[in-house]
Amino acid sequence: MKIAVLGTGMVGRTIATKLVELGHDVSMGSRTAESGALTEWVGEVGGRAIGGTFADAAAASELVFNCTAGSASLRALEAAGAESLAGKVLIDVANPLDFSQGMPPLLTVCNDESLGEQIQAAFPEARVVKSLNTVNHLVMTDPGRVPGDHHVFVCGNDERAKSEAASLLEEFGWPPDSIVDLGDISAARGAEMYLPLWLRLYGAFGTGDLNIEVRRA
Amino acid sequence: MKIAVLGTGMVGRTIATKLVELGHDVSMGSRTAESGALTEWVGEVGGRAIGGTFADAAAASELVFNCTAGSASLRALEAAGAESLAGKVLIDVANPLDFSQGMPPLLTVCNDESLGEQIQAAFPEARVVKSLNTVNHLVMTDPGRVPGDHHVFVCGNDERAKSEAASLLEEFGWPPDSIVDLGDISAARGAEMYLPLWLRLYGAFGTGDLNIEVRRA
Repeated sequence: MKIAVLGTGMVGRTIATKLVELGHDVSMGSRTAESGALTEWVGEVGGRAIGGTFADAAAASELVFNCTAGSASLRALEAAGAESLAGKVLIDVANPLDFSQGMPPLLTVCNDESLGEQIQAAFPEARVVKSLNTVNHLVMTDPGRVPGDHHVFVCGNDERAKSEAASLLEEFGWPPDSIVDLGDISAARGAEMYLPLWLRLYGAFGTGDLNIEVRRA
Repeated sequence: MKIAVLGTGMVGRTIATKLVELGHDVSMGSRTAESGALTEWVGEVGGRAIGGTFADAAAASELVFNCTAGSASLRALEAAGAESLAGKVLIDVANPLDFSQGMPPLLTVCNDESLGEQIQAAFPEARVVKSLNTVNHLVMTDPGRVPGDHHVFVCGNDERAKSEAASLLEEFGWPPDSIVDLGDISAARGAEMYLPLWLRLYGAFGTGDLNIEVRRA
């Protein structure tokens, strides 16, 4: 599948590398095509990986991962271009973290709004699915790093888009019954507002290789 | 132990009833001593249970549970009186839910603040511990309703207060290693901001008898 990964940070590089390993044609997008991280990643990962701007990457893809910093995601997607996102599944893994007040970060948006909803509202033709933002970048593509059963979430307004996203999650190693559909895109509030608890759990347990299993009667 | 339970809703009644069963002397507090819910509860639970106003209940206690609605908690604790809270462990199980915009509820406070912190700031002599707000009222006092291992959180600025709260959680049936210390009272942001996710999990799984197990490497 032709997949664009927008963002060249740890999340973007981890997901893009995994997608290449899985045999997908990956275009990785950065603000500028001359990005050092981008060039380095293409050099490491090889022939199936293509670097470019956000616009180049999105235009070349059938499905898009938003792995940019949450505070910059709307600008990055604007640069990618609404036409290049229209009709495509857009998997938003970003967290709207605000580090301007120091640590721990605050959220740039929460409570009556979420980044996932903002992206869907700004790009109504894109089929936005929020997912993977509740685990760190290594666990995203290698859930077996965390022992036992644990869950990952999807939400969005387009049922088929959620199914397509879930298929990719299964390719990443998430068992089908570990993928929980939280509902429409407004459920991104829940997924994003979990981050302050995740950060405290990271502090309490001293590892980012953690996730939650939902236990129920 | 002489324990005050402030709030006569489902959470307060469930916790107060469990405390009576465990042999504690429980004073349940309401806005008015003539509250129907209060009178009914005392009638049901019997001799060891004493009803009264918030002030009566707090004054008679060595430890206080805040089980009032989060949007009314600061007013209720003001009515209880700072003198009657001073030096006491105050276990805050409330969620700052705002139902004024319909369902699902928003939070009245979040992100750079939490109800737990507001209570600690308003009553600096109280030894506030945020806990139990991440599960529903039945699971609070009967964690075995949810099968398997799962976690409950404590946070607060006073280490001994957290230990005392943890002892009560153990009396409720929470195994010692299920109780996770998230840190100081500002971690209440994480515990409270988990609520939007909890509500979506409730929707996804169709039961409120749910909780999370933190899995980690």
